[in-house]
Amino acid sequence: MPELRHDPILRQWVIIAEERGRRTHDFGNGHEPTPTPTFCPFCEGNETRLPNIIREVKSKREPNRWQVRAVPNKFPALKIEGGLERKGRGIYDRMNGIGAHEVIIESPDHHQKMCDMHLDDLTQVFEVYRERLADLSKDTRFRYVQLIKNHGEAAGASLSHPHSQVIATPVLPAVIDTELQSARHHFRFKERCIFCDILEQEQHDAERIVAQNGDFLAYCPYASRSPFEVTILPRTHSHDFAQSEGWLLRSLAEIVKDVLGRLDRVLNDPPFNLFLHTAPNLKSVRSLRVAGWETLEYDFHWHVEIIPRLTKIAGFEWGTGLYINPTKPETAAEFLRSG
Amino acid sequence: MPELRHDPILRQWVIIAEERGRRTHDFGNGHEPTPTPTFCPFCEGNETRLPNIIREVKSKREPNRWQVRAVPNKFPALKIEGGLERKGRGIYDRMNGIGAHEVIIESPDHHQKMCDMHLDDLTQVFEVYRERLADLSKDTRFRYVQLIKNHGEAAGASLSHPHSQVIATPVLPAVIDTELQSARHHFRFKERCIFCDILEQEQHDAERIVAQNGDFLAYCPYASRSPFEVTILPRTHSHDFAQSEGWLLRSLAEIVKDVLGRLDRVLNDPPFNLFLHTAPNLKSVRSLRVAGWETLEYDFHWHVEIIPRLTKIAGFEWGTGLYINPTKPETAAEFLRSG
Repeated sequence: MPELRHDPILRQWVIIAEERGRRTHDFGNGHEPTPTPTFCPFCEGNETRLPNIIREVKSKREPNRWQVRAVPNKFPALKIEGGLERKGRGIYDRMNGIGAHEVIIESPDHHQKMCDMHLDDLTQVFEVYRERLADLSKDTRFRYVQLIKNHGEAAGASLSHPHSQVIATPVLPAVIDTELQSARHHFRFKERCIFCDILEQEQHDAERIVAQNGDFLAYCPYASRSPFEVTILPRTHSHDFAQSEGWLLRSLAEIVKDVLGRLDRVLNDPPFNLFLHTAPNLKSVRSLRVAGWETLEYDFHWHVEIIPRLTKIAGFEWGTGLYINPTKPETAAEFLRSG
Repeated sequence: MPELRHDPILRQWVIIAEERGRRTHDFGNGHEPTPTPTFCPFCEGNETRLPNIIREVKSKREPNRWQVRAVPNKFPALKIEGGLERKGRGIYDRMNGIGAHEVIIESPDHHQKMCDMHLDDLTQVFEVYRERLADLSKDTRFRYVQLIKNHGEAAGASLSHPHSQVIATPVLPAVIDTELQSARHHFRFKERCIFCDILEQEQHDAERIVAQNGDFLAYCPYASRSPFEVTILPRTHSHDFAQSEGWLLRSLAEIVKDVLGRLDRVLNDPPFNLFLHTAPNLKSVRSLRVAGWETLEYDFHWHVEIIPRLTKIAGFEWGTGLYINPTKPETAAEFLRSG
């Protein structure tokens, strides 16, 4: 059973998932490249090697073919069955590693890049994201559901077949907690959403805009931690991605395709991480009856972040949390606008 | 001039240091290995290529040879000359990238690993750390002085000649700020140092101990974010590394050599980051006359952290700050004890 442990100094939870792990001699010394597997369990025709299919969506364009699948992660960081058993251990705190860890196979085609997907197909991927988020949020043990996509080995992708991951956690992750606190703090004083304020300033400053359509603005954040970071923010305030309607998901697919296409062309298929920050599971956090969640619908604003992995995280960043970015966001945005 | 920018959502500063940076086409796509340079500016005999030598220490064992040197970083993330010019930019905040960025060349020998250094030589490295920290702390523009060592390319070392970096920053970095807050909060309630409490529990639990001597305990932290992480804590409470006496630095050199030797043997020369967390520059932070620093001598406790870089930081970790560690700290400690 994986375990969640709390660091009393850094004030963050860590998932210890030994079963998922390698043995000591498997670590190597980071000098050898990962061998390329010859068999892909996500490819069409290899269904027998999938543990089980949670959800399958047929292609809108070729209705006799599947387009998107959700399957359990074969090496889950968190497991769905059992109780949390929260306990103190002297100065430390722990609980069982309860949660969900699913893989979303984005396409039957092994070599399909997200930026090259047909708009209909990518919209279907976002529809499955929305569905899995809504479904996992029914479980009140889960405080948060995180959606991520790793593209390329340097970004942590262990299989090259295009896929995303959905991870439901029984704690609010540290970064989400910080974002929620900043949003709440801003709202208490100003009765305005901090993300709406950022949207207005980015639109006005214009120099960090990468792309836009009627529903979304994509920009390089003012304090980007790494080169060519892009945030995609819906123009209309909304705290919860899972409440998005179909037309908005299609518009999101359009701008994600646009931004990823620009990154692909300007940086020659860079490794990247893409993730969604949305409201925590309100059914779960409100069951705690603690203060702080009253204004969440007004103060928080879901968004997508894309981080190309072009620089290494060295000791300074690990040790301080202070990132050194060698590319001005204004410069990055200019390249991407013309890319 | 580099710039510091504040992210109002993540509540952290970022250094934008474009002059240090590469141009867009230099990023590549992360697929090609870094070429090995044939010329090393840190090697004996290449002094003419060093910008200037801030400090040079002669070898205790071979007095006609230099042992340790401090030089300015050729590509500094922060620059020493100028005013901070703190300014708001709408919702954002910025200041000039004022600070210091030095390199400490640990040995004249290009191939010298820290774990194989003579105890006398490694003690001299720590003496130079102490001296540079104390010297940079005279400048009240600098809130914090961070000392780090990156070993191996995967850990971010751009030159293989053994060296460390000293970076003085005009802001308290986010991780240090969190550690200071946790320590202060604990002290307010208990009038005990949280690190002293951890030391006592780690000594008692014993299962995470890696090595120890009369002055230091080395252990794998209970909530280690990555496999084989080691913290080295002085047994006697002290908030400020720069106040360490010579005998303590020798004892520190001894345990660092011991721990790095175990990592080297068990994991076959792994890439790693090593960093020091010590008190902020009290002359600087107390000049602010804001509350919170009154008990720092009692509540904070300096320590060294070593992070072998064996796992990749993927989208989940970037997006949530929730780390997935595939190796139990108890398992890692057991390997290292017998290594």
